[in-house]
Amino acid sequence: MKILIPNTIALPLTADVETVVYDIDADVPDEHRDAEVLVVWHNSSSWLQHAARVLPRLQLVQALASGADAVLNAGFAADVRICSGRSLHDGPVAEHALALILSAVRRLDRLRDAQREHRWDDEFIDEQSAVETRALHTLSGARVTIWGFGSIASTLAPSLTALGAEVQGIARTAGERSGFDVHADADATDVLADTDVLVSILPATDETADLFDAEVFAALKPGAVFVNVGRGATVDEGALIAALESGQLRAAAIDVAKSEPLPASDPLWDAPNLLITPHIAGNRPVGAARLVDDNVTRLLAGDGLVNQVRP
Amino acid sequence: MKILIPNTIALPLTADVETVVYDIDADVPDEHRDAEVLVVWHNSSSWLQHAARVLPRLQLVQALASGADAVLNAGFAADVRICSGRSLHDGPVAEHALALILSAVRRLDRLRDAQREHRWDDEFIDEQSAVETRALHTLSGARVTIWGFGSIASTLAPSLTALGAEVQGIARTAGERSGFDVHADADATDVLADTDVLVSILPATDETADLFDAEVFAALKPGAVFVNVGRGATVDEGALIAALESGQLRAAAIDVAKSEPLPASDPLWDAPNLLITPHIAGNRPVGAARLVDDNVTRLLAGDGLVNQVRP
Repeated sequence: MKILIPNTIALPLTADVETVVYDIDADVPDEHRDAEVLVVWHNSSSWLQHAARVLPRLQLVQALASGADAVLNAGFAADVRICSGRSLHDGPVAEHALALILSAVRRLDRLRDAQREHRWDDEFIDEQSAVETRALHTLSGARVTIWGFGSIASTLAPSLTALGAEVQGIARTAGERSGFDVHADADATDVLADTDVLVSILPATDETADLFDAEVFAALKPGAVFVNVGRGATVDEGALIAALESGQLRAAAIDVAKSEPLPASDPLWDAPNLLITPHIAGNRPVGAARLVDDNVTRLLAGDGLVNQVRP
Repeated sequence: MKILIPNTIALPLTADVETVVYDIDADVPDEHRDAEVLVVWHNSSSWLQHAARVLPRLQLVQALASGADAVLNAGFAADVRICSGRSLHDGPVAEHALALILSAVRRLDRLRDAQREHRWDDEFIDEQSAVETRALHTLSGARVTIWGFGSIASTLAPSLTALGAEVQGIARTAGERSGFDVHADADATDVLADTDVLVSILPATDETADLFDAEVFAALKPGAVFVNVGRGATVDEGALIAALESGQLRAAAIDVAKSEPLPASDPLWDAPNLLITPHIAGNRPVGAARLVDDNVTRLLAGDGLVNQVRP
């Protein structure tokens, strides 16, 4: 079995197969158009369409991105199985979420700004040690609510509890997941009233469009922190800016925006107490070789595949 | 028993004692100079000297800072017991260390700078996803070495392993602590050669002065990250700047400096890829009421005290 591996990632496979590294910016060489498995990472849509035309023996396309939309739309024959890299991004996205949460709580953005002015931020020191600001300068004792409680939240939540936070979730249906209380979104208002840190890990769907709006931000505990590592489409960005300007949100950090790359003229850039990172939470899949090995072995054995999204 | 509580912190005690909140910027009122216990937090040296003169019935001074140096030097009678707040800062300092580590690894300082220029940092995105930069854009698989492996390190290390890092320590003597391998500082060079992230939690002593010098930075894996939440006196700051300028250190984050507050003219402010926070890691003791309750109860029962540093 011949497997095409993209030159955009190192994939040391152990499965007993022939691996060929290909350039994602060049046509597939003639001698490798007999490949049965294609791994893709950072490939363009036009390249995927090219691959769909020139690989007649293809049985499996293994995407390493968490969504396989571009692959699904590339025109691969209906019997070619398509698997996503969904599970590879739980760790990286959870890590970035934790980085953004800690940055917002510890105000690393503000302190970086002070640094650039050569300023030791005495005002911050006073605020942090003031009697009445208990929860928001530390995760210890802070109530963190994760909206969208799937595998990334399950990876993130234990790191937050280890730091002393009380973690709960909001999702479509209530229940206990990975040992954490998850509330139904119908009860969100009550949950938000007692939330110090709101973390969104929601995907972009019709239901989540502009979900984080003025009403949600107003429902939070005054001075709460908002972090988004889900999708920009879930946020009413004007409402986010207003909540930061009014101080209802003490700080926020977002890895995603409605428009990416964010245009230079976008008002988000200058919103007070907001940190923006350029959609880098999940930019490196972890455990990709293991997933490819696993799926290739399953394919050879005729077993069901992991993360299969089609057919 | 009468206990004087400073107005700089909320201390809801449960011990059956009389508590009086005092102003750390005013003389102790005449009617409260019969107090037996004094709790101090953010008090000035001159105020402590005043207290040492006017509280003849004092049995215990409970500091909430991790070091009790100022109290020890204030002239309290030799039979007055002095306890530090050492254990109260393990959680906060570990949390800040984690924030700085994640910021340095995920380059939140650089991304904040790009944000201020309204710039989506495509170069960073490419670097992060490049094949050859595996360890340093994530803690997953990164080797983290904590130099100074006491109670803060024991609190921090599990958070790092939860993110997929391999954690080891360096201390005066080798051994296993809290389940982690700790190497003797005599073997530091070997340990550093395989270190992606070096974290200092060392106190300032004669032995640790300028310990982090050009030799230590050169011994690290090229492109390593350095984080200091210990003391500024342990770092040769010229060598730190040079290691950042040469790229031997990919990034660094420090909460402490030799001179604090750092003077506006200090070259550290502008060192490349360095984040500076103004000594805020442990600026809020956690569990202070529990410690005071505990020590007051022990005092009443004639038991040994927690964190006692004198006599």
